[in-house]
Amino acid sequence: MNDRITELQSWLQVNNLDAAFLTAPDTIFYCSGFQSDPHERLLSLFIFQNHEPFLVCPQMEVAEAKHAGWTAEIIGYNDIENPWEKMSEAVRKRKLTLSYLAIQKEHLNVERFEHLTHYFAAPALVSVEEKLRQMRMIKTESELNNLREACRLADMAVDIGVHEIKEGKTEIEIVAAIEYEMKKSGVRDFSFSTMVLTGTNTASPHGTPGMTKVKRGDLVLFDLGIVYEGYCSDITRTIAYGDISDKQADIYETVRRAQEAAISVSKPGATCKDLDITARTIIHDKGYGAYFPHRLGHGLGLSVHEYPSLTETNELVLQQGMVYTIEPGIYVPNIAGVRIEDDIYITDKGCEILTKYPKALQIIQ
Amino acid sequence: MNDRITELQSWLQVNNLDAAFLTAPDTIFYCSGFQSDPHERLLSLFIFQNHEPFLVCPQMEVAEAKHAGWTAEIIGYNDIENPWEKMSEAVRKRKLTLSYLAIQKEHLNVERFEHLTHYFAAPALVSVEEKLRQMRMIKTESELNNLREACRLADMAVDIGVHEIKEGKTEIEIVAAIEYEMKKSGVRDFSFSTMVLTGTNTASPHGTPGMTKVKRGDLVLFDLGIVYEGYCSDITRTIAYGDISDKQADIYETVRRAQEAAISVSKPGATCKDLDITARTIIHDKGYGAYFPHRLGHGLGLSVHEYPSLTETNELVLQQGMVYTIEPGIYVPNIAGVRIEDDIYITDKGCEILTKYPKALQIIQ
Repeated sequence: MNDRITELQSWLQVNNLDAAFLTAPDTIFYCSGFQSDPHERLLSLFIFQNHEPFLVCPQMEVAEAKHAGWTAEIIGYNDIENPWEKMSEAVRKRKLTLSYLAIQKEHLNVERFEHLTHYFAAPALVSVEEKLRQMRMIKTESELNNLREACRLADMAVDIGVHEIKEGKTEIEIVAAIEYEMKKSGVRDFSFSTMVLTGTNTASPHGTPGMTKVKRGDLVLFDLGIVYEGYCSDITRTIAYGDISDKQADIYETVRRAQEAAISVSKPGATCKDLDITARTIIHDKGYGAYFPHRLGHGLGLSVHEYPSLTETNELVLQQGMVYTIEPGIYVPNIAGVRIEDDIYITDKGCEILTKYPKALQIIQ
Repeated sequence: MNDRITELQSWLQVNNLDAAFLTAPDTIFYCSGFQSDPHERLLSLFIFQNHEPFLVCPQMEVAEAKHAGWTAEIIGYNDIENPWEKMSEAVRKRKLTLSYLAIQKEHLNVERFEHLTHYFAAPALVSVEEKLRQMRMIKTESELNNLREACRLADMAVDIGVHEIKEGKTEIEIVAAIEYEMKKSGVRDFSFSTMVLTGTNTASPHGTPGMTKVKRGDLVLFDLGIVYEGYCSDITRTIAYGDISDKQADIYETVRRAQEAAISVSKPGATCKDLDITARTIIHDKGYGAYFPHRLGHGLGLSVHEYPSLTETNELVLQQGMVYTIEPGIYVPNIAGVRIEDDIYITDKGCEILTKYPKALQIIQ
C-alpha cells in the first residue's frame, strides 16, 4: 500500500480504531490515486488496521479505478444494487468487527451516516478530518511540483485575459477567451468558475461575470485557477484600463502594500493570524477596514479551499510544506474593488511565491 | 413569502414540525431565488410554521442575496464569527422552541448535524428531502421554459462540436471550441464538465477528454449540458467520422432504437421501470445486455441529477410536469461506445422532447 494509507493505518492503531470509512472524492483521490466525481452515487474507501483496504465505486468506474493504479479490491455496484449491503458483506468476509470507526464528518451526510450505523451495528464514530487535514496541509515535493505547474498556468491565463482587455468587450467574452486558450493548450479543469469583473462590479468579492462591457477608466479584476494533476492554483490580479481615478489608485496601492507585507512575514514560526493582522492593519490604517470583509487567505492543494485558514484569530503556526493564498481585498460599493492574490509555499527559512504575474499597477492603454 | 416557502410551511404544520433547516445551495436557490456557492462556508435557510423565515450567508454575500430579491431577514457572518451562535440567537429572539426540526439528510454533514443538535438542544430530526424531491420533480411552466432554453442551447453546443470534427483534432480542443462559442454567446455555466470522446475512448461511460486525436473511422461522443437561469440540460450524441465498421453501426442502431422506444412509452401513467426495461430489453435481445451498465436516465432541473431515477426497479409513476433524461448506452471495450440522450418533459397526454438535435446516424466526411 502507499505511504498515505500506511500512515492512516498507523493512526488507526494508535487511536484503537478498527477502520476509517472515507467518502470525500478528493480524500479518495489523495489516498488511492483514483479521481472520480460520483455525483449522488456512493464512492468510498475502507481502510483497516491490519487488512488490505477496499474501494467502493459505481460498476461503470471499476476499470478506471484499476487504470488509475488501485491494486487492492474494488467493489463495484450497479444502479439497482445496494452498495451498503455489498460493503457489509465485504467486511463480514474479512471476519472483522467494526466497533470503533473513523468517518469524514465534514463530508458524510446524515442519510449515509444513518445507513452506516444501520449496516455496521451502530459503531462508535470519531472524525478522521483533523488527521487528513494535517496530512494534506504539508505538501510533498511531488505535490509542490504539481502546484508550481498549476500556478505557472494560472499566470499564463491572467496574461491571456489582460491581452483581451479592450473597449466594449464583455466580462464573459474575456472569460471565454481565457478558458479557450487554456483548454487548447491541454488544461482540463479550472479550480472554480473563472471570474472577470469590470468597473463597479469589482466591488463584489464574489461577483459573477456577465454582459457588462469594459470601458476606459475601469479596474478589471481577474480571479482564476487551473487544476494540474488534481492540484489547484488560485490567482487574482486587478488591472487598470486607461487612466484611473486617484481613489482607485489609492485602493490599489493599499491592497498591494498589504499583500506584500503579509508575504514578507510568511515563514516557519509565524502564525496565520500574524499574516492576516499584518495586512488588515495596513488596510485599516488607510481607512478601508470596513471594506475588507473576508479572511486573508486559505490553504490550497487537491481542494481549492483547504487548511490552513488565514484569519485574524487562527493561532496555527506556519510550517515548511504549507501552501496557501494571500489575497487581501478592498471593495468600496459603487466605486471599485481591488484584490491581489498569490499562492505561497512555506520553505525551511521563508517562502516561495508560486504565482509570478507582476503586481505593480499595470495600465492598459 | 413565495409559493414554495408557503408550501413548506403547510407541510411543517401538517407534520407538526417546528421548522425546516435547509442547507443545500440548490434548495436554497429553489426556495429563496438566491444562488450561491459558499464552498465550505455555511449557507442556510430557516423556515418556520408561522414566522418569517431567515437566510444565513457569509457577510460578503448579503448584498447579493438582497439583490436576488430576498426581502426577509438575512443573517450575515464574517470569517471569525460563529454562524451557529448567530442562528441560535435569531431563533431565541423569535421566542421559538425547536423540538421537531426537518433537515436535509442528503446534504447536511455529520459535523454540522452535531453543531445543530448542540446549539438547538438535541431536537428530534426528520428528513425534508422527500418533500423537496416531490416539489422539485413537478416543474412549473416557468421552470419548463428555462429547461427548454437550456436544451436549445445544448443543441447549439452539439452542433458546434460536430462542426469541429476534423482529422487530428484532440478531444480537448473540441471541448474548448464548444465552450468558447457558448460562453461568447452569454452562457455562464455548463451542467458538468463538457465531454468529447473519440475512438475507443467512447467505450468508457464516464471518460475524461484528453489529448486523443480524432481519426477517420471513429465514433465521436458528445455529452454536455448548459445551465440557463439555474436550470440544467443534458444531451448526448454520437457521430461517425468517415466510414465506420458494421459493428459500430450495429451498436449505434441498437442504441437509437432502444432510446426511441423508451421515449415512445413516456407518458403519464407509465412507470420509470417500464421505460428502463423497454430500452434494456432491446439492447439485451441484440446481445449487448452486459455492455449497458447504468440506469436509463435521471431527473433534471436545478440539479443535473435529480428525481425521478429511471432504473429497472423504480415503480414510480410518471406524471405531467416531470423532466428526465433518456440515455441508453452500449460500451464495448476496445471497440466503441455509443450513447444517445434526450431530455423529456411529460405532458398531459404524452411527452415533449426538449433536445432536438437529430439522431439518425450522421457521418461526417
